[in-house]
Amino acid sequence: MANPTKSWIESANAADSEFPIQNLPYGVFSVAGDPPRCGVAIGDRIVDLAACEAQGLLDAGGSFSAPQLNDFMALGREKWDEIRAKLTELLAEGGNTETPTVAMSDARLHLPIHVTEYTDFYASKNHAFNVGVLFRGPENALPAQWTHMPIGYNGRASSVVVSGTDVIRPMGQLKGEDGPVWSPCKRLDLELEIGAIVGANSTLGERVSVEEAEDMIFGYVLLNDWSARDIQAWEYQPLGPFQAKAFATTISPWIVTQAALEPFRSEGAERDHELLPYLKEKRPGLYDINLSWSLNGEVLSNTNYNVMYYSSAQQLAHHTESGCPMRVGDLLGTGTISGPERGQTGALLEMTEGGKNPVSVGDGQRTFIEDGDTVALHGHAQGDGYRIGFGPCSGKILPAKQ
Amino acid sequence: MANPTKSWIESANAADSEFPIQNLPYGVFSVAGDPPRCGVAIGDRIVDLAACEAQGLLDAGGSFSAPQLNDFMALGREKWDEIRAKLTELLAEGGNTETPTVAMSDARLHLPIHVTEYTDFYASKNHAFNVGVLFRGPENALPAQWTHMPIGYNGRASSVVVSGTDVIRPMGQLKGEDGPVWSPCKRLDLELEIGAIVGANSTLGERVSVEEAEDMIFGYVLLNDWSARDIQAWEYQPLGPFQAKAFATTISPWIVTQAALEPFRSEGAERDHELLPYLKEKRPGLYDINLSWSLNGEVLSNTNYNVMYYSSAQQLAHHTESGCPMRVGDLLGTGTISGPERGQTGALLEMTEGGKNPVSVGDGQRTFIEDGDTVALHGHAQGDGYRIGFGPCSGKILPAKQ
Repeated sequence: MANPTKSWIESANAADSEFPIQNLPYGVFSVAGDPPRCGVAIGDRIVDLAACEAQGLLDAGGSFSAPQLNDFMALGREKWDEIRAKLTELLAEGGNTETPTVAMSDARLHLPIHVTEYTDFYASKNHAFNVGVLFRGPENALPAQWTHMPIGYNGRASSVVVSGTDVIRPMGQLKGEDGPVWSPCKRLDLELEIGAIVGANSTLGERVSVEEAEDMIFGYVLLNDWSARDIQAWEYQPLGPFQAKAFATTISPWIVTQAALEPFRSEGAERDHELLPYLKEKRPGLYDINLSWSLNGEVLSNTNYNVMYYSSAQQLAHHTESGCPMRVGDLLGTGTISGPERGQTGALLEMTEGGKNPVSVGDGQRTFIEDGDTVALHGHAQGDGYRIGFGPCSGKILPAKQ
Repeated sequence: MANPTKSWIESANAADSEFPIQNLPYGVFSVAGDPPRCGVAIGDRIVDLAACEAQGLLDAGGSFSAPQLNDFMALGREKWDEIRAKLTELLAEGGNTETPTVAMSDARLHLPIHVTEYTDFYASKNHAFNVGVLFRGPENALPAQWTHMPIGYNGRASSVVVSGTDVIRPMGQLKGEDGPVWSPCKRLDLELEIGAIVGANSTLGERVSVEEAEDMIFGYVLLNDWSARDIQAWEYQPLGPFQAKAFATTISPWIVTQAALEPFRSEGAERDHELLPYLKEKRPGLYDINLSWSLNGEVLSNTNYNVMYYSSAQQLAHHTESGCPMRVGDLLGTGTISGPERGQTGALLEMTEGGKNPVSVGDGQRTFIEDGDTVALHGHAQGDGYRIGFGPCSGKILPAKQ
């Protein structure tokens, strides 16, 4: 009889393993010479899903041989559930020790999905208020509609990169005394976010409810929405951020499924007033996920996903409010996740109050990110004796190309 | 000896034909029962490019059998030039009268490209000022950076539809006395634009010059960026328009190539001051294209593409300023094209001054678009005895699904 809470892969059973058998996140990997294919992380190994299909252990219509998970996601939630159940059986103590795996240390991790389109929201009230004060002053900090709808904007999908990809400091127009100057960004920032991965299509002209939206979400990644604050300040009115956010968005390589996060459902921030019916949730749509970010290995901030005002399901429902169709592979950023305290902020802009109060890092200080700095996001949900980890989400800043 | 200014397809030689041999725009079509494939419009017929390839008349690596032009565009500018030269030879007077064509009246026209991502700009100074006055008052009408950079925002690619597709009036949040109300849009508008189709990739972290950008543009379509003005007014600060623009964007089915427009190069609007070097053009990047739009068949406005302040090449160069990579199939809207007069405005918002001054249509009046209305855009460049037409770009409004 298999024990579904422990794996025959011993490294998965350590209390601090990010990838116990309860997790089973999906990614895309390659080992030297072979083309990228789909895999699942377990302990310090990766299940080779393409090989599993070839051996008849799993059946996903050949989709696991693709270099992205879109084809598998498109098979739908029943298939997601079936494969998760089979993998649990194969990998549990007493399961199939012939299941093909590779050592994670031998593998290169790739972007797990083809990002169809990328939308970024703005759902932490602390963040929206703090940043609003800096950009527009305290009177106009929180936009009037903020507590009524999950505000979002369309981001750029082509510059979404996987953790470990170096990020080149962007050039751009900065506001100067006598008109704009052409310059490397001087106020480079991170944004600690979670990204929801849409695994189903919706139809042009049709709205989806919050419940249907939740069913469309395949899973979640960590997401760093790198931001050039000085480029943003000059360009962003009235049409929103554009090049300030377009140079790179880093996501973690493993998609943690909704199924793995199910035990960690959590209420979000208290509401100021009732939402319109199309945004109401029947059950909590956030998760209790511990989040932090570090600069050059030093953790500067700790927060939790459950501080948010809107869930990804509410954001997705709102995204279809007008009849806008969603597609497999759409990526929805939650918006920067910030708690109320300085040590809970998800961006340096907030932490340093727009650069006025530097933060100590190592034996130096930072207002914004410097060349050579590495920023990493961390996230996990803490279970009873196990944790659902997200794996790395990091990037190193290279100097601008002038 | 072939005559390259006349075709053996007689309908192409009429002075008012939109598709003379000088045009040769690309599209995707199907005839009953057959899958969509690539074609070129000539007179009242469509050259079946897939059949041409099958018969060895053209060689585009099989890309013309695809249901979109992305694969062909990805072959690069030399191939675009080669195919244009061959088609001119085949279709000219004295050319190959066995070239496979179908009657346009027998064909259904499809979206000509897979829209990879969609970006919309804001490059008519008249429009930016007029709309700015309505949204923010005359003091703040034109943003400070407007004359220094082509402001743009990322739009939604999944709701780009081909001419002839009905458009469902969107539902959304509208500002009310006591908080927002859930309602059908009451201020539905058009935006007369041109869309530039990107036919080449650029690299993450690399900028492209205006000259390189121009070389990356495959061609142009008409584009109606339908806009829900009341949804927009409530949602758009600070992150820009979102659901107000996400329900539909209509493009014309034929991509008019840069080669066909070459004789119509034109200077744009006078500059307020010098641009930063990365935005300077070595030659005029706009075209003399007559544009108009009609409501239920009645033309309400006439303008020209050459009123614009920035060209599509400048917009594309700016899009890569930060290192943002562009991809084959990216669609760049120019922004609403408006001249200074009321009869030259590209949106009802401007024409009716935010709904205050209705315009006469038939035996009625309009402030914004009503259910059952059909809006059509028209465009052509006038040559000596021929015109380069864009074909239809129309959509009919259906009632909201409440």
